[in-house]
Amino acid sequence: MKTYNVAILGATGAVGQEMMNVLAERDFPLNKLRLLASKRSVGKTYQYKDQVIACEEATPDSFEGMDIVLGAVENDIAEQLLPHAVKAGAVVIDNSSAYRLDDNVPLVVPEVNPQDIQKNNGIIANPNCSTIIALVAINKLHEYATVNSIIASTYQAVSGAGVPGLNELNTQVTQVMNDEKVEPQVFPYQIAFNLIPQIGGFDEMGYSSEEMKMQNEGRKILHHPELNVTCTCVRVPVMRSHSESLTLFFDKEIDVEKAKELLANADGVKLVDDPNNKQYPMPLDTSDQDLVYVGRIRKDLTQNNNKSLTLWCCGDQVRKGAATNAVQIAIEYIKQNA
Amino acid sequence: MKTYNVAILGATGAVGQEMMNVLAERDFPLNKLRLLASKRSVGKTYQYKDQVIACEEATPDSFEGMDIVLGAVENDIAEQLLPHAVKAGAVVIDNSSAYRLDDNVPLVVPEVNPQDIQKNNGIIANPNCSTIIALVAINKLHEYATVNSIIASTYQAVSGAGVPGLNELNTQVTQVMNDEKVEPQVFPYQIAFNLIPQIGGFDEMGYSSEEMKMQNEGRKILHHPELNVTCTCVRVPVMRSHSESLTLFFDKEIDVEKAKELLANADGVKLVDDPNNKQYPMPLDTSDQDLVYVGRIRKDLTQNNNKSLTLWCCGDQVRKGAATNAVQIAIEYIKQNA
Repeated sequence: MKTYNVAILGATGAVGQEMMNVLAERDFPLNKLRLLASKRSVGKTYQYKDQVIACEEATPDSFEGMDIVLGAVENDIAEQLLPHAVKAGAVVIDNSSAYRLDDNVPLVVPEVNPQDIQKNNGIIANPNCSTIIALVAINKLHEYATVNSIIASTYQAVSGAGVPGLNELNTQVTQVMNDEKVEPQVFPYQIAFNLIPQIGGFDEMGYSSEEMKMQNEGRKILHHPELNVTCTCVRVPVMRSHSESLTLFFDKEIDVEKAKELLANADGVKLVDDPNNKQYPMPLDTSDQDLVYVGRIRKDLTQNNNKSLTLWCCGDQVRKGAATNAVQIAIEYIKQNA
Repeated sequence: MKTYNVAILGATGAVGQEMMNVLAERDFPLNKLRLLASKRSVGKTYQYKDQVIACEEATPDSFEGMDIVLGAVENDIAEQLLPHAVKAGAVVIDNSSAYRLDDNVPLVVPEVNPQDIQKNNGIIANPNCSTIIALVAINKLHEYATVNSIIASTYQAVSGAGVPGLNELNTQVTQVMNDEKVEPQVFPYQIAFNLIPQIGGFDEMGYSSEEMKMQNEGRKILHHPELNVTCTCVRVPVMRSHSESLTLFFDKEIDVEKAKELLANADGVKLVDDPNNKQYPMPLDTSDQDLVYVGRIRKDLTQNNNKSLTLWCCGDQVRKGAATNAVQIAIEYIKQNA
């Protein structure tokens, strides 16, 4: 079997670490795994299966001989280093938002648009976490009846801000319980026992950058430039699974039973919808695994045309929202190029 | 000045205690305050201004001589005891859901439909907490342009389950931080670091009882039997303020500037809408006070007709969602009958 040289750029972060886990779990056909990070992490070691691998400093020369580079760094570092990976001949799967809307870069959720991988010119972008979770949840419905618009309210975990976000919630909860002063550093306000309706900066209409991603990235992934999304993104004191309340408007009739039937057989989805037996998606249940849980599917009461539904879904932000989706793209890329 | 004999039924609970606070803060014209509770609380004492008042057992005979009874008990106790209060000649303001949809009982948010108080036959019902907060937020908009439908996603605090709910979140957070086993008692699952998309039981369509209250109570309070609401109610690990993401569909055009102008002058509302300066409603900021904060007002991107808006609001569930609204009804009742 052919094996591949893989580098993780940003290996010490929450997403980079999870990429290592997912590569191992899925028995990725690895020849060599290179862990790239900032200078201060050089020499830090991590276990990958029975190997111990030391971090190397990420530089423009780090990508020689690599077949696949998984990017798990912020936009500025991605833009600075990833073009060198492409020049070195690697295919890059990038989790930053730097290239997502670039016409030359496919934006891929493997359950939704795997064929777009073919159009890559060296970079494939991994979508926004909330967008991935929403699209996995609705994809089979959209195949049956085109989704023309979505009203979304999100409940987003602190892991969206990486390890510092996870640490901040832990620290603040302890501070509150001990009656100590809380001094926010990662989030703009206290997140423990609070909600913050801001993720990213705001545009002139008052939408946050995170809120516009579901529309902009959704249009590209679904090849549906007319898709309209009104999204409200809210940070909640949950560790690592995002939840979303979605109301979907379709171009033709679709009832709850049909939706359940479609979702029971949807790739990447676990249908959890038996509320009378207290079965519905919850972020704790989806933490540390890859499926998007979908439930609470019901008729939208604001329309009388049977062309809209409302539902609730949850997915692990670090895994399916980032690391798992990237590794799935890598696996699909290999399959398509075998 | 005329003074009144007031009894609080359920005085030891979160809402009953807050009713005492609000009566004191608003210098309610009290002659006598009677605190009624279950047998096991008899003799428990509470400070009201410079008096110390001992709880008495609530019985059918407890209401003799009372002018106003504030009900802060569950439906079964409300139905068992409050008719005796009416018989004894008191006007009852009841926070349970037992009488809310009774045609003979007005359901009142003082900022919205104070005139309905006149139609009481001894009982005035205090609406559901999320419904009060939503209606205070949208009332001035609805006066300008009729709201025909709402898509709502709630983020509801544990105080909705009273003192046991507050204690459960505190206990569970400590247990999680100490790596101890969490055993839910009040909520169906762990609420610390989690979200639970169930408040109340479910109907045959899959809506929870809490979710249907916004439509059913909203129709009655707004005198708008055609109002349609698709609501998703979610319990979040926040202590005592509910938050709501609302998308509103109007019968005529209304833009963001007009909405802000209306809300800047709305009774019971604090407009907090300057996202570029990180000013938006948050549950921590609205805890322990009476105003409903409204912000993040923006154009709904799913419609092209300028007849819909989306916004975010927060309000204290124990105060404006329950105790404050009840005391405001009592004050309005006195004013109307002066």
